[in-house]
Amino acid sequence: MITEIASLTIDPANAGEFEAAVSKASAVLRQAAGCRSMELTRVTEDPAQYRLIVQWDRVEDHMVVFRESDLFGQWRALAGPYFVAPPKVEHIESVGRYF
Amino acid sequence: MITEIASLTIDPANAGEFEAAVSKASAVLRQAAGCRSMELTRVTEDPAQYRLIVQWDRVEDHMVVFRESDLFGQWRALAGPYFVAPPKVEHIESVGRYF
Repeated sequence: MITEIASLTIDPANAGEFEAAVSKASAVLRQAAGCRSMELTRVTEDPAQYRLIVQWDRVEDHMVVFRESDLFGQWRALAGPYFVAPPKVEHIESVGRYF
Repeated sequence: MITEIASLTIDPANAGEFEAAVSKASAVLRQAAGCRSMELTRVTEDPAQYRLIVQWDRVEDHMVVFRESDLFGQWRALAGPYFVAPPKVEHIESVGRYF
């Protein structure tokens, strides 16, 4: 299991519309092979910044299988119009959960 | 509940020692008021980058109560020597978990 953190920048004036679009787009991501969960979070220090947190079985399920599928286009068609900067994506793996 | 994401940069040559130091330092963080969980993760795309993910009851429990306590010094004494850049910290709040 691997976790994607996508850093998304939007105009805070569009926050409500953007959040509704992501909620709708969750139905697309849910269909992606190896996609296990999706959560939208907002950065407390900067209301223009969101972090989308998605769990995948493997990095390839996100970066190859999903990105090369029609689902990626559907996802971007819903959420992409709100991005005011290119999304930044990284994947993290747990080293240890201590408590 | 709020989640801290601390971006930590280390020399990958010291990864093993750093991870052991963070494991030890978890005993310090566990004592902090309002601190609910702590997980260390590593960025797949860049082995110099770690994301420490900590759940707090409130931002103030992290940024005021913890930072002004002796525990912060103890934490930094253990993990800080491995940082090769100043840590970057942000807090995120859940907007929605969709599946």
